Amino acid sequence: MIHTTDRVLVSELREHVGRTVSVSGWAHTLRLLSQVQFVVVRDHTGMVQVTHRRGGAGDDIEAALQQLTPESAVRITGRVAENPIVKLHGLEIIPEAVEVLNRAETPLPIDEQTGLEHRLDWRFLDVRRRPAAQLLFAVQSTLEQGMREYAYGQGCTEMHTPKLMGTASESGAEVFELGYFGRSAYLAQSPQFFKQMAIAAGIDRVFEIGPVFRAEPSFTSRHATEFTGVDVELAWIDGVEDVMAFEERMLAHAIARVADAYGEAIRDAFGVEVTVPTVPFPRITMAEAQEMLRAKGWDPQGVKEDLDPEGERGIGALLREHTGHEWVFVTHYPTSVRPFYHMRPADNPSVTLSFDLLWQGLEVTTGAQREHRYDVLVKQAAAKGLRPEPMQDYINVFRYGCPPHGGLGLGLSRVLMVLLGLDSIREATFLFRGPNRLTP
Amino acid sequence: MIHTTDRVLVSELREHVGRTVSVSGWAHTLRLLSQVQFVVVRDHTGMVQVTHRRGGAGDDIEAALQQLTPESAVRITGRVAENPIVKLHGLEIIPEAVEVLNRAETPLPIDEQTGLEHRLDWRFLDVRRRPAAQLLFAVQSTLEQGMREYAYGQGCTEMHTPKLMGTASESGAEVFELGYFGRSAYLAQSPQFFKQMAIAAGIDRVFEIGPVFRAEPSFTSRHATEFTGVDVELAWIDGVEDVMAFEERMLAHAIARVADAYGEAIRDAFGVEVTVPTVPFPRITMAEAQEMLRAKGWDPQGVKEDLDPEGERGIGALLREHTGHEWVFVTHYPTSVRPFYHMRPADNPSVTLSFDLLWQGLEVTTGAQREHRYDVLVKQAAAKGLRPEPMQDYINVFRYGCPPHGGLGLGLSRVLMVLLGLDSIREATFLFRGPNRLTP
Repeated sequence: MIHTTDRVLVSELREHVGRTVSVSGWAHTLRLLSQVQFVVVRDHTGMVQVTHRRGGAGDDIEAALQQLTPESAVRITGRVAENPIVKLHGLEIIPEAVEVLNRAETPLPIDEQTGLEHRLDWRFLDVRRRPAAQLLFAVQSTLEQGMREYAYGQGCTEMHTPKLMGTASESGAEVFELGYFGRSAYLAQSPQFFKQMAIAAGIDRVFEIGPVFRAEPSFTSRHATEFTGVDVELAWIDGVEDVMAFEERMLAHAIARVADAYGEAIRDAFGVEVTVPTVPFPRITMAEAQEMLRAKGWDPQGVKEDLDPEGERGIGALLREHTGHEWVFVTHYPTSVRPFYHMRPADNPSVTLSFDLLWQGLEVTTGAQREHRYDVLVKQAAAKGLRPEPMQDYINVFRYGCPPHGGLGLGLSRVLMVLLGLDSIREATFLFRGPNRLTP
Repeated sequence: MIHTTDRVLVSELREHVGRTVSVSGWAHTLRLLSQVQFVVVRDHTGMVQVTHRRGGAGDDIEAALQQLTPESAVRITGRVAENPIVKLHGLEIIPEAVEVLNRAETPLPIDEQTGLEHRLDWRFLDVRRRPAAQLLFAVQSTLEQGMREYAYGQGCTEMHTPKLMGTASESGAEVFELGYFGRSAYLAQSPQFFKQMAIAAGIDRVFEIGPVFRAEPSFTSRHATEFTGVDVELAWIDGVEDVMAFEERMLAHAIARVADAYGEAIRDAFGVEVTVPTVPFPRITMAEAQEMLRAKGWDPQGVKEDLDPEGERGIGALLREHTGHEWVFVTHYPTSVRPFYHMRPADNPSVTLSFDLLWQGLEVTTGAQREHRYDVLVKQAAAKGLRPEPMQDYINVFRYGCPPHGGLGLGLSRVLMVLLGLDSIREATFLFRGPNRLTP
């Protein structure tokens, strides 16, 4: 066993010039010439050139480097030397020991020309070899930690609600069913029900990041059957405005954290500028949005109650033109297109106190004030043709002093898509799940 | 509509003496006397007495208070007054407006005498009415944020791995199966496979908090079919010792955070002292542990390869006696009781480079160095009688330069159980899931 020194990251090498260190990483490129062997080793912080002159006595190093393959996992122990000729920061490592920890087979199953679906089959290699993909997960960590930081500062408690449910939630068609000790269970399509239960349990403000499951046979660039949801629920609100104010501030805070930490790296890797949004975001009612869109030729029959993706992109573009803002809350969705538990204004039961948040024309959030009054809720459910029995546990929550409340659910990967200018949610997820994809 | 001032929390009332404020909360107790109406209002920060003298002209307030029921959601607007006779911090609110936001039905379905299972049926009321239950979720938030803080400081990236899998993971018997667009999918029993894939993807250190699913028909006080796992995976380790060192420091850091924020509150509510553990935790091999236990009469036939719960409690107690420490890493589990992917020492393939972490004799973590060498892994799988086909995606990870790595999975509710001295994991979870419980 070779005695190795503690691992040093490639980004830290400059501090170790003249000393012997160990670097761990992958053989990024190999140039094995007759006189000299060059290996560029890559770790998650950067790349360094390893330079070995052939022909030393008892040269284990020469033999080890000679049988290296691209993407093999190696540990190189050697002296860090300054060399102005070397392109990689003018540094190189003169190896004293080389350990091949896991030799990669050749050829690799993917390369730079490989298409998206086949890259997803070999996602670990796809992510490992592209610095932009690596960056994405660092950005995701920072983004969610920024949201969490804001939420904690606002008095939120982080909750973990069950993903296994005894009855299908409201839209039974899009729910996964599983066998559960001789009966059926269902996967939660959102923590909606349970975070409302937490509100009724006296948790003042609820924050959750977790998986949500949608059994939708959708094959678009923005749908997945499993994705990471960021959920918030706030008790004792005065109205849905409180929820929107919370969300825009949470996002502005989190995106500012990302801009600070990775703004420059994102510009380099993705060619997009991270803009910290100003608050408040613009707000527009669905009626106003449809009027603006129809003036531009959208929905010529004038029959659509909801915004379709084209309408969402349209209203995003129009608002950006008018306000310079990339974000817009579309509010007051018609009762017909919203679930029964969305609260309706006392003076206009044909709309709901709900919103979608669009970023650059992509829906990233749905939110609402919830109906907390038992009798009103039961009436609204009945009017939608829902039977009370399957949702008795839900309805019971409103019988014993449930406070007014509202909340939001945000799709983390959709925010990442827009933030990094990605074409598909498949690129914004570590391991995408869709109707045709359950692996790797 | 009554114009209300901004909400003030009960804990902040002292700063508002002499001013009119709004407090939102639940009617905790009612004493409606002939001259005066007393209502104690509780929010998540404390309780305050509302005192109303009957008989004002046009007295809406009197009527509103008269029809109040326990646990109704109310907003009280009134003047904060000092009154040394009042037990609750010598403060009371003289109401100027009372809004009943959701009147609770009477009687409530549970009370102080209700048993655990029926309390779980009405978990939102159970949690709302018990300050200790409220505290539990604040402690959970702090505990996990403390672990996350340590992990981020150590270079971890937070990942969200899929819970839907295309093939059952290694122990197929304990896995939930669901219908997935005409075929079967399975719920992940742990992020094990996917966090190893993240390591192979070049994510240097992986951190995840998320749900894990176990289709075990276990009815003990410490098993659930769905629970929150804290998972860590570390690349480029020198050995399993690196994983244990990470975990003990992560836990010490997080428990110190809990002790700072809630040590006193936990003492009051649960009657237990939060002790920040010293590091390193004691380590003992399975062979040593069994020898110590057998000397005390455990497993008289000398046939057990693993520790049963009695053995775990026993070794926890013995180590505490010898070292004064509540925590112990039991290491080197026999190969026969560990999965094929645990690495084995070169000089002794009958044991694994694995550990369990016990706290007060309860297993809270399993961890290991993983076998990252493709040929060794395939051999170990074959020796356990596993066919390579169903796990081809897993095995592929080790063909192209997977670095040495190891990690751990910790059960969040089990840690909370011990931390707060709870008898059952049902009390340490917001909404427990077991073979007989899928609701609420």
